Amino acid sequence: MDTILPATPPHAACKAEARAWFESLRDRICAALEALEDEQASGPLNEREAGRFVRRPWSRPNADGSDGGGGVISLMHGRVFEKVGVNVSTVSGEFSPEFRAQIPGAAEDPRFFATGISLVAHPQSPLVPAVHMNTRMLVTTKGWFGGGGDLTPMFPDSAETVEDAACFHGAFERACDAHDPEYYGKFKAWCDRYFFLPHRNEPRGVGGIFYDHLDSGDLARDFAFTRDVGDAFLAAYPAIVRRRAHAPWTQAQRQHQLVRRGRYVEFNLLHDRGTTFGLKTGGNVEAILMSLPPEVRWP
Amino acid sequence: MDTILPATPPHAACKAEARAWFESLRDRICAALEALEDEQASGPLNEREAGRFVRRPWSRPNADGSDGGGGVISLMHGRVFEKVGVNVSTVSGEFSPEFRAQIPGAAEDPRFFATGISLVAHPQSPLVPAVHMNTRMLVTTKGWFGGGGDLTPMFPDSAETVEDAACFHGAFERACDAHDPEYYGKFKAWCDRYFFLPHRNEPRGVGGIFYDHLDSGDLARDFAFTRDVGDAFLAAYPAIVRRRAHAPWTQAQRQHQLVRRGRYVEFNLLHDRGTTFGLKTGGNVEAILMSLPPEVRWP
Repeated sequence: MDTILPATPPHAACKAEARAWFESLRDRICAALEALEDEQASGPLNEREAGRFVRRPWSRPNADGSDGGGGVISLMHGRVFEKVGVNVSTVSGEFSPEFRAQIPGAAEDPRFFATGISLVAHPQSPLVPAVHMNTRMLVTTKGWFGGGGDLTPMFPDSAETVEDAACFHGAFERACDAHDPEYYGKFKAWCDRYFFLPHRNEPRGVGGIFYDHLDSGDLARDFAFTRDVGDAFLAAYPAIVRRRAHAPWTQAQRQHQLVRRGRYVEFNLLHDRGTTFGLKTGGNVEAILMSLPPEVRWP
Repeated sequence: MDTILPATPPHAACKAEARAWFESLRDRICAALEALEDEQASGPLNEREAGRFVRRPWSRPNADGSDGGGGVISLMHGRVFEKVGVNVSTVSGEFSPEFRAQIPGAAEDPRFFATGISLVAHPQSPLVPAVHMNTRMLVTTKGWFGGGGDLTPMFPDSAETVEDAACFHGAFERACDAHDPEYYGKFKAWCDRYFFLPHRNEPRGVGGIFYDHLDSGDLARDFAFTRDVGDAFLAAYPAIVRRRAHAPWTQAQRQHQLVRRGRYVEFNLLHDRGTTFGLKTGGNVEAILMSLPPEVRWP
């Protein structure tokens, strides 16, 4: 009998292709959000210039000095988007002993590869929902996809929110249903459980979908689903922004938005596993905290 | 031989006295900070009214519905202090099984009593340091005191900060030295270790003192030290504010302050054990998050 080596998942052969997908999705999202900036020529804050993304590459040396990959933060401060960040990263290295038990396949061999995209948008207008989206592929001795998106309107009970949530949920539902009839119900419930502030006993927003450790045994199928999640986001969110960004708002609505953003900060720093895991494992602080809102109030 | 009952520490006989001390300290601190508001008649923002503390009592029913005590939040939004909160609380109950091992004396008997004061001040002026102070007495089958204070100037390298830090540290040094020659060095180092943001590799501010589980075997001595820590804070911080609050500031300095306040939020939500422990154990959310700054920016 040969020595048993850790298995190599088929995902290992898909690294470059997955990375290329996430980067091309980034390009399409940035173009769509810049187009919304251009369209604002006739709306609130139109005296300001249309925003443009500024890209800043970062690299991540491993503890032993070897190349651990890196990423590119695309950040825009515009007249529709007060702050929107899109980060793509492709990193590799070894999980520290303390984290190996928590990561599928890492106990056998601590080496990992990860590539993905993450986005958080904080609009100027309190009438435009904030949003988060991310998708990624992980490779250890196992391979899987994960990701999702969730919408955070500032007025959860308004008629506009009902409409926006239906649009957002509908896009993800169609993406899910094209792949597996069980995905949508399961991933929507996962999102509701995840984006919840136990200390406030309130949800972060109106949800969306969340999935992780997705490995159906068919890499092509899982990757296609993850691509469709990105496309669903791109179909839904700019359409929501387009519908809301031209309405004027009041100072009272703005103040409400700044307070609601405090809840976003509380969730990300107290509860979000991505944030706390990233900071504990020496991730890029700027990329991780890119999600924090540009202006916040705790009155 | 009798059944061995959990020990009752002498602190149990001191509950009312300790509570009365913390509440009288609150009264004196609030009066001193309101006096600073009055003095601002000739300084920046003097067109606004002098702030006054507003008190809001809260109660804390235990999980079984029994009386778990409560507290009073005193909150002021003024022209010197953009937001300053002083919370006194006196609570009792039982630690949940998951926390018993972490708390001295709670493994033997989960019942606890705690009384204390905590304060966080966020001044309007970026030239006036923010500050935190708290002192408390805990009783389980053991009894102890804890507390401290730390100063967070917005411009850590300025000449004014050097002067303010010397005043703040000096007051605590004198309070410590009157009780034990080892206290100051030990408690100052503890503070520097505690108020540190590992993800930024930077200190929260210029430090102060921090102590916990103080039980020298002489309750009267430990209580007297804790009273002196409160008095040292009261001697130092209003004097620092008085020296700085009349200087005009620039918009650039204000923007810098709003960004530095982000670090304060990051520390409190990511690292501060008091905050995360309080939220996990069902503490009063408003009282715990009273520490968060009124306005913050993550550009």
